[in-house]
Amino acid sequence: MRFFTAPVENLIEQFQKLPGVGRKTAQRLAFFVLSLPEAEAEGFANAIISAKKTVKFCKVCQNLTDSETCSLCEDEARDRSVICVVSDPKDVAAIEKTREYNGLYHVLHGCISPMNGIGPDDVKIKELVGRVSAGGIREVILATNPDTEGEATAMYIARLLSPFGVTATRLAYGIPVGGHLEYADEMTLTRALEGRRQM
Amino acid sequence: MRFFTAPVENLIEQFQKLPGVGRKTAQRLAFFVLSLPEAEAEGFANAIISAKKTVKFCKVCQNLTDSETCSLCEDEARDRSVICVVSDPKDVAAIEKTREYNGLYHVLHGCISPMNGIGPDDVKIKELVGRVSAGGIREVILATNPDTEGEATAMYIARLLSPFGVTATRLAYGIPVGGHLEYADEMTLTRALEGRRQM
Repeated sequence: MRFFTAPVENLIEQFQKLPGVGRKTAQRLAFFVLSLPEAEAEGFANAIISAKKTVKFCKVCQNLTDSETCSLCEDEARDRSVICVVSDPKDVAAIEKTREYNGLYHVLHGCISPMNGIGPDDVKIKELVGRVSAGGIREVILATNPDTEGEATAMYIARLLSPFGVTATRLAYGIPVGGHLEYADEMTLTRALEGRRQM
Repeated sequence: MRFFTAPVENLIEQFQKLPGVGRKTAQRLAFFVLSLPEAEAEGFANAIISAKKTVKFCKVCQNLTDSETCSLCEDEARDRSVICVVSDPKDVAAIEKTREYNGLYHVLHGCISPMNGIGPDDVKIKELVGRVSAGGIREVILATNPDTEGEATAMYIARLLSPFGVTATRLAYGIPVGGHLEYADEMTLTRALEGRRQM
């Protein structure tokens, strides 16, 4: 049953499609948008259309970009002999925020997950092998998530790349900075022990 | 600092303007929209533009509508001698959901709030007085929120309407259905006692 005029109901329904947004939140967001000045509401709508129309995958690293190759791949100051492999563009942002990494990236857009019918051909592994086989790569950091699928994908890629003589590395596991030992799960603690370093 | 390509950053920023949406949620929503088929993303954008362009206030009750008068005001089956005054279009939806009310509405679009610089002329009280003074109204139900501002607004309107000889009523206060006495605050409990009825 519809309690608002059709354009408002439609807007509420659109917001309700967003992940984690129920009817009440969708109502709140829709009424917020209605309260915006017309120019701002249009800016919102145009941001959606323009992002959808202009954003594509970088032909080198598969990260999101609005040009042929992304700004990270085009940055001459970056170390072109290291590739950090992540499953998601959001992970690129997370690593860039550390300001500790100066190499290139490769975005898989997912992880291998046989349970969900996602095989190696459904993520951008082929493209990664292409880049490595073209030569000039010294190290490939496998920075997929530390869960089952991320692990399996990292292992699969490491095996695939072994003929090319590149070093495949994996992010360190351990206690998060600021974390408490007593709250760390045993797997994390086991990995933290295994990876202990001399002080 | 921008970690995504400009159109994606712009989309994230737009989502971040929404109430209760921080950077992380905005990212999640933006990437969800990017993952939609182009037609669906356009549907979302168009819903914003069309709601913003077509939605206006009903010239009678000030509820949101896409025509001159809203469907509730035009519904000949409704009792035209009762007006339920609410502060927000969402309250109309809430009352309609009860299916217990068959009169007309009046949406104030806010409550009088001297603290926030909102006076009687900043909400649609003038329009309500206009409707009541035109005659034919038997009862005005003041269904503003049971908080300080809602109370004050209800009292102000009741006084304003007294010369027209209409009955001004207020929604009952009490324990919410399914609620527990022990969790009711004392104000609610006091009002529930005051409003007790013979069984």
